[in-house]
Parts: sequence; structure tokens; C-alpha cells
Amino acid sequence: MKLTDCMRPTVNDRDCPARLILDHLADKWAVLIVVRLASGTLRFAELRRAIDGISQKMLTVTLRDLERDGLVVRKLYASVPPKVEYSLTPLGGSLVDKVNELCTWAEANSAEILRARERFDKRNSMVVRAER
Amino acid sequence: MKLTDCMRPTVNDRDCPARLILDHLADKWAVLIVVRLASGTLRFAELRRAIDGISQKMLTVTLRDLERDGLVVRKLYASVPPKVEYSLTPLGGSLVDKVNELCTWAEANSAEILRARERFDKRNSMVVRAER
Repeated sequence: MKLTDCMRPTVNDRDCPARLILDHLADKWAVLIVVRLASGTLRFAELRRAIDGISQKMLTVTLRDLERDGLVVRKLYASVPPKVEYSLTPLGGSLVDKVNELCTWAEANSAEILRARERFDKRNSMVVRAER
Repeated sequence: MKLTDCMRPTVNDRDCPARLILDHLADKWAVLIVVRLASGTLRFAELRRAIDGISQKMLTVTLRDLERDGLVVRKLYASVPPKVEYSLTPLGGSLVDKVNELCTWAEANSAEILRARERFDKRNSMVVRAER
């Protein structure tokens, strides 16, 4: 479906481009990469060190998706060894505030969420015992 | 890792609870469910109809994760047939603005992102031809 076929782009419609874009954005690794590049240009190895737990493959794939969406620009220097740098485009920069807010919310509410998880797991283990 | 072991919760640390929470939040289906429940309580079948393209299994799993995190409350009525309703908790409600902003951004920028994708694909197909 083309955007022009979409009366008004909406993330609720499976075929609408806005939803296809949310596929890439609402992704943990994409969020963490955008947050990291918000402070400036980084090389591949620097990004990998900065994002604890990301695999080489996942970083490659997510950077490529972000580049394809026009959020990240990849610059290759013909040096020896070759150097590759990643930065946010102005479009990517306009997303920084949104993803920062999501991360800040997660950080601020993590204690409350962990308590909710404990209550849920305790309740569910009691239900399982009662059903036996 | 417990939150108390974490000097300051940060999404950049793989073992930090804030990162584990981002695993659930930065997920397309979780975002779409939170946006839908923001307008009020819905039954399972209503949610499924409202979110185009979600499978029964994915809706079940994502609702359970959101319930476990204390963002969604599930209410079971002992009627015949049994009725199950889902609503946001106050904690879930505090997330609505953040995810709404992400969706609004995706909707507002979808045309620009689609143009970026076209340019990327055209450039890459030329590189492939040149390399043959």
C-alpha cells in the first residue's frame, strides 16, 4: 500500500505505512541505538561497546533498517583499515526526544514494575497450586 | 539482578531492570494495545478487532506481559459465557502520552521515511548491478 492510498496514515491499520514504520521504531535495539547516537557520531565498534548485550548481527541489521528509513547516515572512509561512522540524520534527531522519554519512563518506573511482576508471579504460583 | 544492585537504573545496562522493562515496552504490539486501552476498557475480542493484524496468540502473550508488568488489569466476570475485560492501570495510564507521541511521530513522518526507503533501495540495486 502506498501512502497516497492511505486517507490518513494510522498505526492501527496493518497495511498503512505508519504501521510499517512502527515495526522498526518500536524495537528495543532501535531505541537504544537512537539514544546513543543522540550524543554524536560513533563508529560501529563504539556503538557495540556502548549498547551492552547487542550482538554484531543485530547491530548490523538494526543500523541498516535505520539507514534505510533515513534516520541514520552511514559514512565510509576509504582509509586503511576502512573506517565506518554512524550519525543521526535531522529526521532521526527529531525522534530523540520521544525515545528518551520512553527510556526515562522505564528507568523511573522500574521499581514499581518489578514489584508488580513479583505480585503477579506469586499470585499465579498460588493458582497453579490450588488447581492441583 | 535486583533493582537494589543497580546504582542507577539505566536502559544501557543489559542486566538492569530498566532494560528488561524496555524489552516489553519497545514492542509494536504493546504500543498498539496501550494506545487502544487509553480510550477505555475493552474485551479481548474488541481489542483484537481494534488492532488490525494481531494474532490471537500474540494478543494473549502481550496482554499477559503487560498485566505482569502492572500496566494492564484483567477482570474476569463469572457470567455465562465468561466475560474478560482489560483496562490500563494508573501506571499504564502514565505511559499513554509517551507511546502516543511515538505513534504521532510515525504517522507525521511516514511520507518522508517511505521516500528514504525508495532512495536506499534504488541506490543499493545500482551498487549490486555495478558489482556484477
